[in-house]
Amino acid sequence: MTGTEPMTDPAANPADPELLSREGVLRAQERLARRLPMTPVVRSDDLDELAGARLWLKAENLQRGGSFKMRGALLAVERLAANGSRGVVAQSTGNHAIAVALAAAPYALPAVLVLPEDAAPVKIARIRAAGAEVVQIGSTLAERIALVERLRAERGLDVIDPYQNADVVAGQGTATAELLAQVEAAGGRLDAVVLPVGGGSAVAGACLVTEGQSILVFGAEPVAVPALTEALRAGEPVTVAARHTIADGLRPDRIGQLAFELAHKRLTSVLTVEEEDIAEAMRLTLTHARLLVEPAAATCLAAALRIAADGWGDDIGVLLSGGNVETSLVASVLAGAPVGRS
Amino acid sequence: MTGTEPMTDPAANPADPELLSREGVLRAQERLARRLPMTPVVRSDDLDELAGARLWLKAENLQRGGSFKMRGALLAVERLAANGSRGVVAQSTGNHAIAVALAAAPYALPAVLVLPEDAAPVKIARIRAAGAEVVQIGSTLAERIALVERLRAERGLDVIDPYQNADVVAGQGTATAELLAQVEAAGGRLDAVVLPVGGGSAVAGACLVTEGQSILVFGAEPVAVPALTEALRAGEPVTVAARHTIADGLRPDRIGQLAFELAHKRLTSVLTVEEEDIAEAMRLTLTHARLLVEPAAATCLAAALRIAADGWGDDIGVLLSGGNVETSLVASVLAGAPVGRS
Repeated sequence: MTGTEPMTDPAANPADPELLSREGVLRAQERLARRLPMTPVVRSDDLDELAGARLWLKAENLQRGGSFKMRGALLAVERLAANGSRGVVAQSTGNHAIAVALAAAPYALPAVLVLPEDAAPVKIARIRAAGAEVVQIGSTLAERIALVERLRAERGLDVIDPYQNADVVAGQGTATAELLAQVEAAGGRLDAVVLPVGGGSAVAGACLVTEGQSILVFGAEPVAVPALTEALRAGEPVTVAARHTIADGLRPDRIGQLAFELAHKRLTSVLTVEEEDIAEAMRLTLTHARLLVEPAAATCLAAALRIAADGWGDDIGVLLSGGNVETSLVASVLAGAPVGRS
Repeated sequence: MTGTEPMTDPAANPADPELLSREGVLRAQERLARRLPMTPVVRSDDLDELAGARLWLKAENLQRGGSFKMRGALLAVERLAANGSRGVVAQSTGNHAIAVALAAAPYALPAVLVLPEDAAPVKIARIRAAGAEVVQIGSTLAERIALVERLRAERGLDVIDPYQNADVVAGQGTATAELLAQVEAAGGRLDAVVLPVGGGSAVAGACLVTEGQSILVFGAEPVAVPALTEALRAGEPVTVAARHTIADGLRPDRIGQLAFELAHKRLTSVLTVEEEDIAEAMRLTLTHARLLVEPAAATCLAAALRIAADGWGDDIGVLLSGGNVETSLVASVLAGAPVGRS
């Protein structure tokens, strides 16, 4: 198991291919170091007691743009801007789009973002506030990718794919790299890390940076959209029949090819989480860790509680991936409103 | 203006009187350094835009015990335990009590905490979870102080007053000291800091640590309980006719004598905040800074927004003092339920 598989289609990844390695992620971390806030690793005695383990919560909901996606977008946009890009286009369920919009703004680089029709309104608003253009289409990954391709061809834009771009994948890996360093600085040592699975860039990045380390890597995805579970079963990315999930960030119905290739051998396992457990984890994160997270991040905490209960380790790192969530959803989750079963 | 006034009643403060100075707070900071997590200073582009200033949010809602009160309690309990205390008693609206309970537990030091009858249930639960005894009485500071005195006499307990104890006041000052250091490390410089006013320990601590610095110090209290506003008018602490406020942590109807003496000359001003503005600030902190704070902390943010609007500075530090808040209150605030006018 090397964890640093060659890319299937290097042409799709104009960035430095050496980025796709542990060293590449650590280099990406250096590039980002002075440009993004160091998000804290939050501990909660209450959550630890509930888990029966020490949970180390990497609070990327406090990241610029409200999610860890800022990391990869900043690196990708920087490279394209340096190479004379005339504008960028990206598809996303929301957070990658916010991140690309924010990253492009200082370069005055036009940015067009393609989101599903049922994207979270708070995410649409944040993209527009950053001065970027939003186009919404359908609900499947295939529809968004087709539109991105059309916009690329028609307008001469550069694509920043959230799962295929090497800068993006390495950039997302820096969240795990930082978490590991922060836990070590606090005198701890992680047995496992848990990452949310949308298109797969978070797990791919984590697999790269933990290469050669004795640390388990878990993915967490909604029961409603078991894209990585099914991909692991099939041995390759497959499109799944997605049902509705409150975890809007984890709605991609297919794992990215590059992300899958980088992750599938190194990954310990992927857990699927019921909607009600996602909602409960949102409540727990809010009341015990005093952090507002979006359902994608809560999915990760819910999985971590099971991983702890199953005895996989005493020290578990959790990527609280983002905090862009509708106020109305938070209010209804806090009020204990049913979110439906998957 | 020296900011290091002599104490009215040194006998009431068994701790090192030299603590009550800038140097004393910095020494307290050293004592705490390796024992409490360094809470982050959170920035939000959205809040900055709203404020028209840079807001530096010291996230003490992420502190152990859910508030900055952990700082002073740890120092006071440590000193008493070293001096052979047989147990401690303290009155509090909640957070100081949680902090004393948590600080006493490792010493197996019995702790009795006196709270008002309308204390936040989440705070009562946290105190009991730490293994301490809770006694509830009335709603005024005078009732609580009388009961503390009786328990002290009857049971031979040591009192840890939240506003009179020098360890506590110096300890609370370390939150501001840390904030200043963190802002400086990030390349910034505060024009002003804003602290919530309950019994006055936060402003007193901030006044100590900013002694000799060119930085404005503001207090923030609910319109419903203008204890510091009235004390400044009278030139001494007075008991005010308190009305209901959602900011349960700011319900003390009288400023502590020591806190008043340490703060009143150095303080720039105290702002009073309407209930609806406290609720709105809770919403803003949650949706823009992704932090769950209790109404006392939100009172501080609401004041900071006015301080920014009034042009007092471009860089404003805000003590987000705590995050112990009822889930039901958060849900109703998010749903926009009216909280009443003061």
